[in-house]
Amino acid sequence: MIQFPKPTVEQFFRTYAITDFAVSKDEERLIFSTNLNGKMNLWAMDLPDTYPYLFAHREESCSFLKIDDKNRYVLAGFDKDGDENHQIYALPFEGGLPQDLVTGDSDEKYFYAKLSDDGERLYYITSKDNPSFMNTRMRHLSDGADTLIHQGEKSPTFLTAISKDEKAFVFIQMFANTYIKGIVKMGTETYELVPDPDKIHTVSDPVFIEDTVYFVTNYESEYSYVAKFDLKTKDFSEVLSIEKESITSVTYHKESHVFYVTTEHGVQDALYRFDLGSETTETIDIPADVIGKLHVAESGALYMLATSGTTPINIYYSETGADWKQLTNNNVLGVRNEDMVEPEVVSYTSYDGMEIEALLFKAHPENDNGHTIFWPHGGPQTAERKTYRSMFQAFLNRGYTIFAPNFRGSTGYGATFVTLVEQDWGEGPRLDCVAGIEWLFDKNITDRDKLFLVGGSYGGYMSLLLHGRHADYFKAVVDIFGPSDLFTFANSVPDHWKPIMERWIGDPVRDKERFIKDSPVTYLDGMVKPMLVIQGAKDPRVVKEESDQIVAKLEEAGRDVEYFVMEDEGHGFSKKENEIKVYTMMLDFLAKHQG
Amino acid sequence: MIQFPKPTVEQFFRTYAITDFAVSKDEERLIFSTNLNGKMNLWAMDLPDTYPYLFAHREESCSFLKIDDKNRYVLAGFDKDGDENHQIYALPFEGGLPQDLVTGDSDEKYFYAKLSDDGERLYYITSKDNPSFMNTRMRHLSDGADTLIHQGEKSPTFLTAISKDEKAFVFIQMFANTYIKGIVKMGTETYELVPDPDKIHTVSDPVFIEDTVYFVTNYESEYSYVAKFDLKTKDFSEVLSIEKESITSVTYHKESHVFYVTTEHGVQDALYRFDLGSETTETIDIPADVIGKLHVAESGALYMLATSGTTPINIYYSETGADWKQLTNNNVLGVRNEDMVEPEVVSYTSYDGMEIEALLFKAHPENDNGHTIFWPHGGPQTAERKTYRSMFQAFLNRGYTIFAPNFRGSTGYGATFVTLVEQDWGEGPRLDCVAGIEWLFDKNITDRDKLFLVGGSYGGYMSLLLHGRHADYFKAVVDIFGPSDLFTFANSVPDHWKPIMERWIGDPVRDKERFIKDSPVTYLDGMVKPMLVIQGAKDPRVVKEESDQIVAKLEEAGRDVEYFVMEDEGHGFSKKENEIKVYTMMLDFLAKHQG
Repeated sequence: MIQFPKPTVEQFFRTYAITDFAVSKDEERLIFSTNLNGKMNLWAMDLPDTYPYLFAHREESCSFLKIDDKNRYVLAGFDKDGDENHQIYALPFEGGLPQDLVTGDSDEKYFYAKLSDDGERLYYITSKDNPSFMNTRMRHLSDGADTLIHQGEKSPTFLTAISKDEKAFVFIQMFANTYIKGIVKMGTETYELVPDPDKIHTVSDPVFIEDTVYFVTNYESEYSYVAKFDLKTKDFSEVLSIEKESITSVTYHKESHVFYVTTEHGVQDALYRFDLGSETTETIDIPADVIGKLHVAESGALYMLATSGTTPINIYYSETGADWKQLTNNNVLGVRNEDMVEPEVVSYTSYDGMEIEALLFKAHPENDNGHTIFWPHGGPQTAERKTYRSMFQAFLNRGYTIFAPNFRGSTGYGATFVTLVEQDWGEGPRLDCVAGIEWLFDKNITDRDKLFLVGGSYGGYMSLLLHGRHADYFKAVVDIFGPSDLFTFANSVPDHWKPIMERWIGDPVRDKERFIKDSPVTYLDGMVKPMLVIQGAKDPRVVKEESDQIVAKLEEAGRDVEYFVMEDEGHGFSKKENEIKVYTMMLDFLAKHQG
Repeated sequence: MIQFPKPTVEQFFRTYAITDFAVSKDEERLIFSTNLNGKMNLWAMDLPDTYPYLFAHREESCSFLKIDDKNRYVLAGFDKDGDENHQIYALPFEGGLPQDLVTGDSDEKYFYAKLSDDGERLYYITSKDNPSFMNTRMRHLSDGADTLIHQGEKSPTFLTAISKDEKAFVFIQMFANTYIKGIVKMGTETYELVPDPDKIHTVSDPVFIEDTVYFVTNYESEYSYVAKFDLKTKDFSEVLSIEKESITSVTYHKESHVFYVTTEHGVQDALYRFDLGSETTETIDIPADVIGKLHVAESGALYMLATSGTTPINIYYSETGADWKQLTNNNVLGVRNEDMVEPEVVSYTSYDGMEIEALLFKAHPENDNGHTIFWPHGGPQTAERKTYRSMFQAFLNRGYTIFAPNFRGSTGYGATFVTLVEQDWGEGPRLDCVAGIEWLFDKNITDRDKLFLVGGSYGGYMSLLLHGRHADYFKAVVDIFGPSDLFTFANSVPDHWKPIMERWIGDPVRDKERFIKDSPVTYLDGMVKPMLVIQGAKDPRVVKEESDQIVAKLEEAGRDVEYFVMEDEGHGFSKKENEIKVYTMMLDFLAKHQG
């Protein structure tokens, strides 16, 4: 019969993103943000029918989605070409073109906070008049009247919960990714949610239930748990913790008085149902490894955005918490699951005895080209987890083995571990990478002369740094929008990031010596291997100058460096054709330097 | 609450095409050709789930789709940028990138004919070695062995049916759109399917049932009917006719021994079930007005591609012939059905007393801008019917009323009516248009100074001709790939069209006077109104020179003419962004000339 060749690299990129979704209160409409038609747009399905239709056309990434409880309108946030200056738009319930609702100058940010239960008042957070610390405001949708609710001070402050009577508010104040305070404000009174807020801790997902605020915190603990703050007694107490797992979100289902709790443990997630009455916890099986979003409908039905190492992100539905049904069908063009590579979870001992977990994706023997790609993840305070990456599966299909360590600073391994990258971007994490490389050699997974280095964002920074200090390990290096100089990087981040830079990176004056030591540009002389640098022109996080300057210097020094700037992208890929173009370019670059 | 403006023009174009579909024998997979993601590609759904996934990526129009009965592979035809040089490709059953199967030079055509029941032998028709009359060949898919089955002679000849034992074949021979012979070939014997093949008639949809060939014909009748030819006795006889309706297709369902018969009557279609045993006919309600394709599964379930004046094309499913379920959800972005305009079916008397039917789309009063667009349809041997046109509904929403007459030569009004455009492109049909325009004025539907003229293909030709000879009627004129000169047009059509040009247009030498009289270019002096000309650079039917020459001459004469060439399109729009660009341009052009 007809013989078909193996899947091509392009096929792996013919998946799409699903970044967010919302379900109408009556569960008759599900709206989601996806680049199904090539660019990010909103699509909808009228449940139980799952055939999607175009719901809003804007061709930009959506930052939030909220459907009015009475199905009168839909709110959505969009930025411009990934610049992250999100503003708030409204759409008819039937869909259409987004109309300006709460918008302003193109360099201001307007974040959605909450919509009142009656859909009349919109609470939002804006950089306007307070670019570093943010203001919280409330807009009456009927007459446009707009009032200041809270003026951020000291650090970026975000409204995250409102009591039913709209008289009590919970704000979170970000001092660092690892230090986030929660404050409850009732009239002129304010209270800290934890007993000693000066202790480093985080607060997230506050929810008002009568006279109590429930929230997620890691206060005095390695792992995040659910705690509560009694508004009457002002008492703080623990409600629920899960052994060796960090609670990442809590969603309250009023009708059954239960919490749906998501947790992370290392490279994957779990879901639990906690009954607030009986105080019992049950595990709910989930249809994939990593949860992107969980929505609990009034009916008790669950809607989940989830992915795994071999399955692109999809929306799943479960009426009861079992028998998940896949609502979307985002898969890889013509590639069967058995042609994908499921990652192995491995661990190795680093230079100082610390255990480091890593994902090892081994190319199938029939594809194996003998080369390994070392991939330091971005963040740095995130982790490489069991999520589908087109790049990984495409590169695996071309025969590359991929190794992605969760070096110190990664999330999912306790609160202390995450802090270990703070004010130490270039030492501990780098040595964890070096130990990982040596482990690959020791275990005969990789030959010493067959290693590539590829990373993006913090991973791009790490790639530059490893290249500058350990060039002998690598045949060639790819840097995707990585900071090249901590001095300039610290000055160029968005305004509302600046207050958290102190704990994250440190102070350029006080920590000058360390900034020099940890800046890739310091090791320019060491960067002797061929390099490909990718940058989005509109990137607001790692600005183009970070790449421009290192490329200019490498070119000046006569090094082999290719530079590609995507004019219409920010810190990531919003456009499918850009993504395919860049990864094809990367594959060509790697192929050229295999020899 | 939030106020939303009326839908914009762009929204009406945010639908997509669905041009074809195929269902696997087990009805577990439905594959369809659509530009859902912006460009034409194949998508699939795994029934009963209707969430579509990308099945094949090629970004070209698909000319046919066939799924192997044993689900081993899928065959599909693609051309290049609309050049209509279709070639045959194969795909794994899981989908992927189309692989060459029966292909050749880019200027050759390879049409799919039939696949043997066991999926081993592919019958196809090619222009290779016989560009005017076409050859039919058979390819063994296992070893690639390829044999000539039939050599076309005298006129383009296409294999359309094969007996179960693959020893008898039905070929149709096209002499004109209105003169298509059917020939059955058994070994060295050949028989005409009708008693006197010299009489003008058509044959289509032949099907072998044991020793009989059933087919659709209008032999000695105004309306097409189902007839049969007995292979043993060589007798011809009528099987089924429907009063005042033309049968357009017949699909045999072996398991129940019935025919599903589609008919056309004027601007809409109907569906019937004819039991070959009891010889009874029942009407089947259809979910829209015009049928694009009907598939009858082994189970008896029906799958239909269908559209109506206010509903874009969709795929519908019915298990039993009632209770249609819409499988796809192709709708207009944010526009409710009540915001669309359902056409009125009107008729008027033409210059010689002939009744002409027309569709009248009246702009809703709240949108009405007082102007009317006169739209002569393409073809010319087709008709303007109750199908969704983004252009119509968008222009209606901007306030234009649209009038589309089915002038003589249109299909759906009997066999004689269709022939009335043959060798008379510019007289009768033109005068029908003139009578339609006067009718619009008489009925006070349109003011004499508020009429625009827009047409494509033959409608573009008619627009040029009406402009040249009746410019006073119009404020401005849009010509979309219309032939401007019958002499050059007759010479530039695809090779396999040439044999049918004689009956269709006539002979440039013998009919020189008429060719001059009916060529728009003859009336260049009359074309004094502003004009917009649209052309696809790769158009194989009306080549770019047809537009180039008229534009050049108009420019030479100092006329107000705008010319837009789409470099990557043929005779139509395969790319959504081109479509929106062109129609936006047209709307701007019309708006500019309203004053």
